[in-house]
Amino acid sequence: MIELRHQPMELRLRHTFRLARGDSDARQNLVVELEHEGLVGLGEAAPIARYGQDQASAARAVETMVERLNERAINPRHFATAAQSVAVEGQPSATAAFDMALRDLAGKRLGAPLYELLGLDPTATPVTSFTIGMDDPETVVAKVREASRFAVLKVKMGSAGDRKVIEAVRSVSDQPLRVDANEGWTLGEAGAHLAWLADKGVELVEQPLPAGRIEEMRQLRAMSPLPLFADESVGVAADIPKLAGAFDGINIKLMKCGGIGEALRMIATARAHGMQVMVGCMIESSLAITAAAHLAPLIDYADLDGNLLCVNDPFAGATVEGGRLVLPSGPGLGVQRRSTEDE
Amino acid sequence: MIELRHQPMELRLRHTFRLARGDSDARQNLVVELEHEGLVGLGEAAPIARYGQDQASAARAVETMVERLNERAINPRHFATAAQSVAVEGQPSATAAFDMALRDLAGKRLGAPLYELLGLDPTATPVTSFTIGMDDPETVVAKVREASRFAVLKVKMGSAGDRKVIEAVRSVSDQPLRVDANEGWTLGEAGAHLAWLADKGVELVEQPLPAGRIEEMRQLRAMSPLPLFADESVGVAADIPKLAGAFDGINIKLMKCGGIGEALRMIATARAHGMQVMVGCMIESSLAITAAAHLAPLIDYADLDGNLLCVNDPFAGATVEGGRLVLPSGPGLGVQRRSTEDE
Repeated sequence: MIELRHQPMELRLRHTFRLARGDSDARQNLVVELEHEGLVGLGEAAPIARYGQDQASAARAVETMVERLNERAINPRHFATAAQSVAVEGQPSATAAFDMALRDLAGKRLGAPLYELLGLDPTATPVTSFTIGMDDPETVVAKVREASRFAVLKVKMGSAGDRKVIEAVRSVSDQPLRVDANEGWTLGEAGAHLAWLADKGVELVEQPLPAGRIEEMRQLRAMSPLPLFADESVGVAADIPKLAGAFDGINIKLMKCGGIGEALRMIATARAHGMQVMVGCMIESSLAITAAAHLAPLIDYADLDGNLLCVNDPFAGATVEGGRLVLPSGPGLGVQRRSTEDE
Repeated sequence: MIELRHQPMELRLRHTFRLARGDSDARQNLVVELEHEGLVGLGEAAPIARYGQDQASAARAVETMVERLNERAINPRHFATAAQSVAVEGQPSATAAFDMALRDLAGKRLGAPLYELLGLDPTATPVTSFTIGMDDPETVVAKVREASRFAVLKVKMGSAGDRKVIEAVRSVSDQPLRVDANEGWTLGEAGAHLAWLADKGVELVEQPLPAGRIEEMRQLRAMSPLPLFADESVGVAADIPKLAGAFDGINIKLMKCGGIGEALRMIATARAHGMQVMVGCMIESSLAITAAAHLAPLIDYADLDGNLLCVNDPFAGATVEGGRLVLPSGPGLGVQRRSTEDE
């Protein structure tokens, strides 16, 4: 028998988050604890409103999952298949929380960090980018100054005032930039933006067109001076074959794909197609960010800053030093609850 | 520092092996021992003559690999990337031996069987087939009688006398059959053979056409009454995307792909394309067979009988009970040397 506990977790944002799809001051995530054989595995769900998920539906999903696991007498040691075998349709963030909690349990049982179970070199991590949210030029400049310790910045674009944000960043920093267009452009706009961005020291652009526009993406990629990464166009490994030729790489998010197992399958599938791999995140505490960070030795680009955008992260795990991700060496995910919230 | 020892291993066959590409009474494999931190990891290379490999070239390859590993100070704990990062071009069986030895070490260090490191259910294994080599009808009948404990038989075809072997099997057994054509047919022959085989209780056919004939395979698959699996057409994960639509599944062999890491990537890539997965083998002792068997909970079809075709298997590991693979529960690969050779 495996025992479930879950708690709502409100993550308050340092800056109001201005996205193409709306503003936000806080996110409502879910912490999941799975207890088995005297050990507790931790997981986190960051439900994605765009796909009809919220804290309550994620909580119901993990309850259903643990019921199914116990009814079917599935051994939680079988973490490669357990979470997906009891998954609730349309709730991949709950599946991700479950999957990471089972892997946390496995690592704690074996006394080894997750990266060691995966046979990965914890020092072979890429730099991670830090997101500068859309805002007025003065605020952007202030945010960029705060972010000087990061080796790469990520800028959300997508609205009409797009270029002003980039210009504001460039007025105070020559850090390499990544741009996330969040499906905000038409094919014509994208062509013009990409040519302009190529001159601004941008290293890649995410999701220039709406998710379903794969044929237009092929046209765009054929003329793009910059590598183009899929985000909203890709959820799981089975989405990848049709993206070959349309994107140069994919952005994997645990909350979209359902956990570390599917993320590993996505990395393998992308590599088989000669595509590059980024691992990204939602607004997440250090719990889910650290789970994703254990995959960092396998990837080209990390965009794991969701925890750094919050003022009340209840967990400690992966950190950023010299721009690079540093993995914790404790067993499992290696994540600890902070004794008092850091505000 | 990691220390290497290797020994030649001659595996003598119970029956002369008549393949489309020539006969064989024995195979010359290589046992690899990697010692690190007081523990010894075991691996086996079964060099493939078709690709210009032999026991001597595999031995030189593992020597080069361990030199590179030590020169570059690569930690053997990083088994996900270590073997491939020091691999010798054209020697995937040596890479496979190295990869499995590093995973054996990791399991022994953590005190857990490989299936547990992978989070797999060791009881969720498929039945494995037993190969009936090409021979005269009387000998085939005798071999089939010997093989009654297997749930599925595999018959090698490819020569002109093809159908006589199937008829000889069917004269004494109604066990399900798999057929391996070993690239032996033309498109026209394949069409006729497949229609005939579909009436004989055959569940799938491997590699009907020569490896490079992918376009002809698409035509064949469109009219085939049976699922068609790639063997010689597929080596590594990057070969899989172009096979989608041409084959229903792939046959993964550790000696072709370079080990368990690449095999896992192949399984992920095949699944992303909606393809089925078989894991097969060369003539191998229970050492390499057991390494492959740890992947069995992830696959649809197992063809892991190389050890059962030998009379002097020096190792004990995975067994077959009621036609199904049974994984050993010891740490790492769970393979032991037999105290005396079983002849």
